[in-house]
Amino acid sequence: MTTERDHGGDLAAATRAFGGAPADWIDLSTGINRVPWPVPPVSPHAWTALPGREARDRLIAAARCAYGTDWPILPLGGAQAAIQLLPALAPDGAVRIVTPTYNEYAGVLALSGRVVEGVPEAAALAGAGMAILVNPNNPDGRRVSASDLRGIASCVGLLVVDESFADPHPELSLLTGACPENVIVLRSFGKFYGLAGLRLGFALGARAHLDRIAAMAGPWSVSGPALEIGAAALCDADWRAVSTARLGNDAVRADKLARDAGWNCLGGTALFRLYETPDSTAARAQLGRARIWSRVFPWSPRALRLGLPGSSWEWARLGEALAREA
Amino acid sequence: MTTERDHGGDLAAATRAFGGAPADWIDLSTGINRVPWPVPPVSPHAWTALPGREARDRLIAAARCAYGTDWPILPLGGAQAAIQLLPALAPDGAVRIVTPTYNEYAGVLALSGRVVEGVPEAAALAGAGMAILVNPNNPDGRRVSASDLRGIASCVGLLVVDESFADPHPELSLLTGACPENVIVLRSFGKFYGLAGLRLGFALGARAHLDRIAAMAGPWSVSGPALEIGAAALCDADWRAVSTARLGNDAVRADKLARDAGWNCLGGTALFRLYETPDSTAARAQLGRARIWSRVFPWSPRALRLGLPGSSWEWARLGEALAREA
Repeated sequence: MTTERDHGGDLAAATRAFGGAPADWIDLSTGINRVPWPVPPVSPHAWTALPGREARDRLIAAARCAYGTDWPILPLGGAQAAIQLLPALAPDGAVRIVTPTYNEYAGVLALSGRVVEGVPEAAALAGAGMAILVNPNNPDGRRVSASDLRGIASCVGLLVVDESFADPHPELSLLTGACPENVIVLRSFGKFYGLAGLRLGFALGARAHLDRIAAMAGPWSVSGPALEIGAAALCDADWRAVSTARLGNDAVRADKLARDAGWNCLGGTALFRLYETPDSTAARAQLGRARIWSRVFPWSPRALRLGLPGSSWEWARLGEALAREA
Repeated sequence: MTTERDHGGDLAAATRAFGGAPADWIDLSTGINRVPWPVPPVSPHAWTALPGREARDRLIAAARCAYGTDWPILPLGGAQAAIQLLPALAPDGAVRIVTPTYNEYAGVLALSGRVVEGVPEAAALAGAGMAILVNPNNPDGRRVSASDLRGIASCVGLLVVDESFADPHPELSLLTGACPENVIVLRSFGKFYGLAGLRLGFALGARAHLDRIAAMAGPWSVSGPALEIGAAALCDADWRAVSTARLGNDAVRADKLARDAGWNCLGGTALFRLYETPDSTAARAQLGRARIWSRVFPWSPRALRLGLPGSSWEWARLGEALAREA
């Protein structure tokens, strides 16, 4: 449709630009974990019945445990589903967001007639009616401490903190402290758990905000398989610990390959890295010839974002692609 | 959440009222086919990757074939997802809906500050800014011909026709004719295909309307498994033909059981029946003692809606429950 914005994860764009079939490509254009939580067979009931209250309550309990929180929790069909509903929650006054960041915020608010002012750092959010910040930030991994965020919350109307990439960085999350009346935290399920196709995410915050979001999202906005798989995955503390450790090591490994290729790490999280290359278009083409899809940005001629390979053969292909022309 | 409306398919309500565990119950409180399209294993890619353009295009092609239409098609996370977005599409002027019908329309529009006028028949929609009609209607199965609907479209601002139960009644659908500029048709996937947990539906209509709905729904609003399973199921013409024939026969079979119990058929579709009972609360309790869940309505002391059993043992249990106290 006409209002679509550019996103990672679009292998159709990769094949148009560089050829091959989608199955030939390693998609590192997103921050989605490429070693997904292993999905067991889904119960027939999850496919056939309207998603019910019991399954939703099990998912909420699992999310409460995984995120270590007692905040009210609302499951949604992805963090994006919550972003779509933000315009109705925006108080009067300026809407500010720390940029550069995920482009859907400004896009969705613009569609509703609000203009988003990009600001360069969290301190500049003060005084906004609605303040938005992704923590850690996508694509540069910038972090704001939970205590600094609480300070910002005290001088804005409504603070939205997108913790879509916070799973492997739990120390950053606001969710382990008290729940301020004017803060909404968004969490993505699909990124850390490597199951972006499932469409599952959460809004957390004071009950009055969640009630408004729930009324706009409507009944059955999360599928039966998402309720069932999400509950099982979020209860799996062993997998979470192993994956967090692996992703941390893999980020270091990717940075070394990039450094050897002459790229400088600008930041990142344990799910993606942002590199300064001599020329991001050329760097993307270098990777594209090896059928590795990466992300470049209109606001920088040099920055390239790279997700982390999963299997050993994916690592080998990335290593070869970077070494070939270093 | 506080704005929830009463719906079929809530077995938690059944167990609260009549005991047992959800698994003990046969849920006939909805119009969801209890002989679902058989779901094959889902491809790993559908779970892990962001739902992509190719998978969406395959689904749209399959829907085009199943519905016999050349109207523009937008996949959504259920027909309900489209209903949630209708307020933004409502032109100025009265919003009218043929009642009694599915209660989400009035609920969603009221939340947005619009009031829905219930009217008793389709002819009374004339002159409305937005006119809404479910065809065939839920819960009474009332039908309006496609030619009558085209006449109504010519004297309202925007006509929304919910064809959620039209799969086994294709002769009623507007979709095989030309696409008027001011008509939106909604289709449910989960009801006829018996896969309500999947969350899949469609809006069809002029491109300008669909672009607005798509922008509000946002990217990736349909899951990868829904794109994949929906495409395969909607291509299965044999299953569609066999299921349509079976459901037609089963509706006759259910009506005979009800008649023998002294209940009068008020109408219905091949996916549910509406019966006039001596007392709907007592009739629901009679079925509830046999762990069969049905639907009663606040607007009638006698009407009870019943979905159709699937397996032979479900038919036997319904037969016994109705015969026991006839």
